[in-house]
Amino acid sequence: MKMSELLQRSGVPLATVKYYLRERLLAPGESTGATTAIYGEDHVRRLALIRALTEVVGLPLASVRTILGLIDDPEPDRFRTLGRAIEVLPPAVEADPGADYPRARAALAEIGQLYDPGYAAVAQLERGLAAAEAVGMPMGTERLHGYARHVMAIAEIDLAQLPGDDTSRAVEYSVLGTAVYEPILAAMRRLAHQDLAHRMLGTAAGEQH
Amino acid sequence: MKMSELLQRSGVPLATVKYYLRERLLAPGESTGATTAIYGEDHVRRLALIRALTEVVGLPLASVRTILGLIDDPEPDRFRTLGRAIEVLPPAVEADPGADYPRARAALAEIGQLYDPGYAAVAQLERGLAAAEAVGMPMGTERLHGYARHVMAIAEIDLAQLPGDDTSRAVEYSVLGTAVYEPILAAMRRLAHQDLAHRMLGTAAGEQH
Repeated sequence: MKMSELLQRSGVPLATVKYYLRERLLAPGESTGATTAIYGEDHVRRLALIRALTEVVGLPLASVRTILGLIDDPEPDRFRTLGRAIEVLPPAVEADPGADYPRARAALAEIGQLYDPGYAAVAQLERGLAAAEAVGMPMGTERLHGYARHVMAIAEIDLAQLPGDDTSRAVEYSVLGTAVYEPILAAMRRLAHQDLAHRMLGTAAGEQH
Repeated sequence: MKMSELLQRSGVPLATVKYYLRERLLAPGESTGATTAIYGEDHVRRLALIRALTEVVGLPLASVRTILGLIDDPEPDRFRTLGRAIEVLPPAVEADPGADYPRARAALAEIGQLYDPGYAAVAQLERGLAAAEAVGMPMGTERLHGYARHVMAIAEIDLAQLPGDDTSRAVEYSVLGTAVYEPILAAMRRLAHQDLAHRMLGTAAGEQH
């Protein structure tokens, strides 16, 4: 397709597409003359992904570049490639490979999960557990096991659709799925609290079934 | 106790305590002279709560004031009081009572939950579901039911310890519990993905059991 059709189908303005081409975030089209080129479905797809990452997920372009790099040139180890891509997402938690993360390590040992100790989510869990302690609501063993069981079930739902044989698609799926479903889960938890509180505390006007 | 002991026990600097007293976030002590007063355990407790909300949860003082107001003067309806307190937490999603939120409404009807249609988490869910659609990963009915079942189980764990007969304590518990356990759940989900990916994709060096 011509550039005009690419713009129309992707909904991305010309100046932005040109910028992505210059920055090598978008591969050049097949040249058909000094100033014209033909674009394919891969270009439409790539623009949709960049748009999802920037406009919907809200990532800065430097983070998008890292993710696209992992999609275009995955590391030989698919497990590490996925981990590195997810680490680009907020919250920005510095994972210090030399750090100890005693709370997270103890929690993960207690629930018997495998993990990369340098993975940012370990530092994220450590920070969360320390915050819970600091406000006087430390996570007890019972709560940990309860949470872990149900979080694992949710993760199984998520990974049931992971494209297992294509690392690039797996990176795309994992990054977008992690980013867009975290706020959904948080909202659903708050709404589940409200449903339960309603049953415990009685009816307020205006709620719906 | 004297002010010096209150400072020592709370770990809050004098200038900050004076500011909280001036702003009526902290009740005055019992006056024992023109410039001296005696403080009690309630003051220690209140300073710990303000510190948790500002330093650990990271709320601006205006939000802390709203939450403290709901603790000191709860509305007669405990359900509404809790909802209003949670709405103060990020993410800041504007709940428009006149708005429709079609995706959230359909999802909550599908899973049969009671909710206040003006509650901010409804708008938050709508925004999340719209984002999932926009990136080409709309939430299907099966995923919705799977998530809902496990999120409800997590919410039941959370509310098992809700101080049911004291609205002020319930507000405190709900606000702190919602704020500190959301990042923990997000981190646990990412780590559960890693554990599952590890089993699906094979071992990488450096992971621990």
